[in-house]
Amino acid sequence: MQRYFVKNDQITENKIEISGEDAHHISRVMRMKPRENIICCSEDGQVARCEIQEITDDLCFASIVEWIDENKELPVFVTIAQGLPKGDKLELVVQKGTEMGAHRFLPFFASRSIVKWDEKKGRKKVERLEKIAKEAAEQSHRTKVPEINEPVNFKTLLNESKNYTYKIVAYEEDAKLSEKSNLFSVLSKLAGGDSLLAVIGPEGGLTEEEVSELRNNGFISCSLGQRILRTETAPLYLLAAVSYHTELLG
Amino acid sequence: MQRYFVKNDQITENKIEISGEDAHHISRVMRMKPRENIICCSEDGQVARCEIQEITDDLCFASIVEWIDENKELPVFVTIAQGLPKGDKLELVVQKGTEMGAHRFLPFFASRSIVKWDEKKGRKKVERLEKIAKEAAEQSHRTKVPEINEPVNFKTLLNESKNYTYKIVAYEEDAKLSEKSNLFSVLSKLAGGDSLLAVIGPEGGLTEEEVSELRNNGFISCSLGQRILRTETAPLYLLAAVSYHTELLG
Repeated sequence: MQRYFVKNDQITENKIEISGEDAHHISRVMRMKPRENIICCSEDGQVARCEIQEITDDLCFASIVEWIDENKELPVFVTIAQGLPKGDKLELVVQKGTEMGAHRFLPFFASRSIVKWDEKKGRKKVERLEKIAKEAAEQSHRTKVPEINEPVNFKTLLNESKNYTYKIVAYEEDAKLSEKSNLFSVLSKLAGGDSLLAVIGPEGGLTEEEVSELRNNGFISCSLGQRILRTETAPLYLLAAVSYHTELLG
Repeated sequence: MQRYFVKNDQITENKIEISGEDAHHISRVMRMKPRENIICCSEDGQVARCEIQEITDDLCFASIVEWIDENKELPVFVTIAQGLPKGDKLELVVQKGTEMGAHRFLPFFASRSIVKWDEKKGRKKVERLEKIAKEAAEQSHRTKVPEINEPVNFKTLLNESKNYTYKIVAYEEDAKLSEKSNLFSVLSKLAGGDSLLAVIGPEGGLTEEEVSELRNNGFISCSLGQRILRTETAPLYLLAAVSYHTELLG
């Protein structure tokens, strides 16, 4: 069943009003008719099966048939702090990372980030990433859309990190030295509702100074397997490992 | 150190002759000079530190300084049998899947594959995928380049599957039903040197008939976490889970 994310102010008692692109999607792309059913997810992750009542040019009105007890979210909140990469790699990270269950994306300016971030265009970029995240969340049947932040500097990242239960940094030197136990050790400690902040370097990696400052701030450096992963591949490995460990491990 | 994959016939005693694009890369892109060092990986996964002796317009001659005992390969051989997807998704699967350690890519024509495969252009496509795999293997410090096959039909896939120790199929209906134990159960059985064949559906997924025929041929159907992954995301999840389980699990 097609699913849509709605804001809380679109819900009044047991009615939902859908406007904008989602209404267009319902009427023009899916060509749905009254009495057909859709799934709506509220901002706080509640899921309802709804029946379409009326479709006008710009709006779709639906009534809630039943609330569904559905949990497709990772049991822990994972934030991907990605050293700002080149080109459209952040789009790939957000799309695939959303499918794999990320809770939040927090790009940061790493020493070796070479991308310039124009404030005006930057806002547009974040909006585009938010759209990608929303579509990926719908497609993967998630009940929450991850939050996307504008890039922060390294100091702000360190400050933010104080709010997390666990903090790791993917460090390729660890992969070269065949470090093998840190990721498992951290993931084994995770309990439902914990938060995990994972820092990933940009192309060219993090500097030694950055890694040492992260370590001084309670980050544990981990390898992600034995191979050297590209900057956009590392968060996907990490999220898959978190899902495997917390959702599938016997 | 920059690494290059060489064929066995490029190695004579303790000398290596590098030609073509790799020679161009050494002389023009890296602008290396005699006495600088490179890593060469042979076809059978042997790794040598080499010293450049001479660089001509088209060739580079290097001598082997020492063989290195380096193992960056997954302890098991994973083949990704990917239902032929649209557009350039196969390129993404090959690039990222190579970084994550895949041994072989075996695309197949699934019932819901909608891509036409022109034999002539197809050969070119496979060559392009081979190049992507080689570059990704170099970049991720692997010692082997995965094999890329031309797409096969479903019957050939079933026939091929007889050569594998374990066989799984990623099935999204399992994710919907919250199946959680099959992947862990298979990965727990894997021993070093075993082979694993993982079948992934195209956009739109596998048909019930395909899944049931796979099951009849000894495939175990698994969910890859609780969310519905796109066709190109599923193999990356699987490979990360295999790496996490076989390389990092305590």
